[in-house]
Amino acid sequence: MRVINFNAGPAGLPLPPLERARDEFVDFQGSGMSILEHSHRGKEYEAVHDEAIALLTELLGIPPGHQVLFLQGGASLQFAQVPMNFLPKDGSADYILTGVWSEKALEEAKILGTARVAATTAGPDKRYTRIPKQAELRLDPKAAYVHLTSNNTIFGTQWHAFPDVGAVPLISDMSSDILWRKIDVSKFALIYAGAQKNIGPSGVTVVIARKDLLAYGRKDIPKILRYATHAEANSLYNTPPTFGIYLMRNVLAWIKSVGGLAQMERWNREKAELLYGALDRMGDFYRAPVEKDSRSVMNIVFRLGSEALDDRFVAEAKKAGMVGLKGHRSAGGIRVSAYNAVTPDNIRALVGFMEKFAKSNG
Amino acid sequence: MRVINFNAGPAGLPLPPLERARDEFVDFQGSGMSILEHSHRGKEYEAVHDEAIALLTELLGIPPGHQVLFLQGGASLQFAQVPMNFLPKDGSADYILTGVWSEKALEEAKILGTARVAATTAGPDKRYTRIPKQAELRLDPKAAYVHLTSNNTIFGTQWHAFPDVGAVPLISDMSSDILWRKIDVSKFALIYAGAQKNIGPSGVTVVIARKDLLAYGRKDIPKILRYATHAEANSLYNTPPTFGIYLMRNVLAWIKSVGGLAQMERWNREKAELLYGALDRMGDFYRAPVEKDSRSVMNIVFRLGSEALDDRFVAEAKKAGMVGLKGHRSAGGIRVSAYNAVTPDNIRALVGFMEKFAKSNG
Repeated sequence: MRVINFNAGPAGLPLPPLERARDEFVDFQGSGMSILEHSHRGKEYEAVHDEAIALLTELLGIPPGHQVLFLQGGASLQFAQVPMNFLPKDGSADYILTGVWSEKALEEAKILGTARVAATTAGPDKRYTRIPKQAELRLDPKAAYVHLTSNNTIFGTQWHAFPDVGAVPLISDMSSDILWRKIDVSKFALIYAGAQKNIGPSGVTVVIARKDLLAYGRKDIPKILRYATHAEANSLYNTPPTFGIYLMRNVLAWIKSVGGLAQMERWNREKAELLYGALDRMGDFYRAPVEKDSRSVMNIVFRLGSEALDDRFVAEAKKAGMVGLKGHRSAGGIRVSAYNAVTPDNIRALVGFMEKFAKSNG
Repeated sequence: MRVINFNAGPAGLPLPPLERARDEFVDFQGSGMSILEHSHRGKEYEAVHDEAIALLTELLGIPPGHQVLFLQGGASLQFAQVPMNFLPKDGSADYILTGVWSEKALEEAKILGTARVAATTAGPDKRYTRIPKQAELRLDPKAAYVHLTSNNTIFGTQWHAFPDVGAVPLISDMSSDILWRKIDVSKFALIYAGAQKNIGPSGVTVVIARKDLLAYGRKDIPKILRYATHAEANSLYNTPPTFGIYLMRNVLAWIKSVGGLAQMERWNREKAELLYGALDRMGDFYRAPVEKDSRSVMNIVFRLGSEALDDRFVAEAKKAGMVGLKGHRSAGGIRVSAYNAVTPDNIRALVGFMEKFAKSNG
């Protein structure tokens, strides 16, 4: 029986794309071999590769001036690859800090060059409970780029409207909320996302970037780390993680088949309303620290009265078939990661459990 | 029906590890989720991760002073990561050129610092047909390291005895022949290998390195690109390619179950004798350009009388259930990649086909 999987990433995936992968795992389309045994330069794999790009382009409405790349190394390598490519020796980049992952991105940029903090919402306890307002941003109009993290898995905050950064290229880590709804891709110079939340397995990184930006990246860095290298080769410069891209294709095809990003948004909003509604209703027992207009639709965090009660909540939920609820080790408490594969019914089951738990422990 | 898969990489894998993956693809060990939906910080995945390291250590006889890392980006990222970590600003590294991949490794090093060609066996036509002799190496005793490619997939040459490089750390790209037999790991400061030939699917890179070397890598490079970062975190600094490592674990367990590297070597030598024996016997029809003592056991290359005949050979072999025989686009001709998953019987079938083909086209 499938458990209800609230893992933060690698996360649960929808069952149909997994079953599709299982059914043809040893013999892909009657070819007598697994998709992962096919050459990345063969027509069978290339069709999958190109279909994944086409589906992502269609679902997100990616404009023709942007290109999709499939890379490796996760968001953590992008933290370095972005400044390696786009932070000139005599330039500076702006970072907006809203959580641990944006801090890590800043840390890598500082090793490579000059990076400024354009805004931070860190509290005195180094926790983040909100997204900054436009008026709080101290943007450098000459910055090489502005970097932000669209959704913060650890502290459970999310940008619901993206900031105006003028003519400066906007770069966003969207690892944990890409594909939760349609966005205006044209506003971003570059988007990157580790696949292991909303898109597929770990080991694939999606990059969506303006073609002109890709072309002017620095040339004094290793060829393999230049975005331009991968853009010119349709992400086939070196052997890509073929099985991961194949499985991502399955997930994207599933998203399209159930109604695309409009349906994802409908379900995700319903899930968030159910869960935040429950938290607000039982505010004496469950404490949700994030300011209401900064609440993440993807990662919902809260605390109970004590660490011991947090632990009991996690343990009893597990007995009830719900796993992955322990908060990140740096934040504690409870975290519900409710990515696209989590259904409204899964959240109803969780809310039912929360109500019972509050009654018996309140 | 399974085809006979001579792909150069991604390559065929043994069927039992694939079937094991398929059978538990949707429900890993009764956990109610796929292995790829498990957290990389959960006990289920960590057991797989640690078992993969333990199996590799046991099979290769990796000494306690060395550590195994699982990274991403393939050998192509290692071409850059090695000099980023170990080539000091005022230092120089030695590269031994035996094919296209060692040229690419040199190219990345030259972008980052000073790199010398300690030897090359490139012919006037830029083709390589042999491994250099010890006396041909013009080694710099002050080099930061010596880099070589143990097996050359494109030109079909292989180091059968590794050179004496004195006290200079020896670094080898073993992507295409790791695990073909036991080697003396202690002779190498660092070994790296993309998994997609002898070990598993694309998207995982294995690094085996001396712990003291890992510790003294450069600190002025991004944290994610320092080997030390991954060494300190047991390759769990960021989310690893969990499914790829899981499948690699399955392959390593299979190798152990059939008799370890002694059995791999026995089969691989048998395969090479069968195939090179056939080439020598039919030397008028099939031309094997590689010097005998440099012949690769993994990638066997040859040509027929004309490109048209090469193409007919590939097409008719495909009809007979044998795929992946076309030579690399930069070399032409025929290439038989006979990694661990290719059985002596597969080679017997190929030799049978070659005999018939020579008769009807000779």
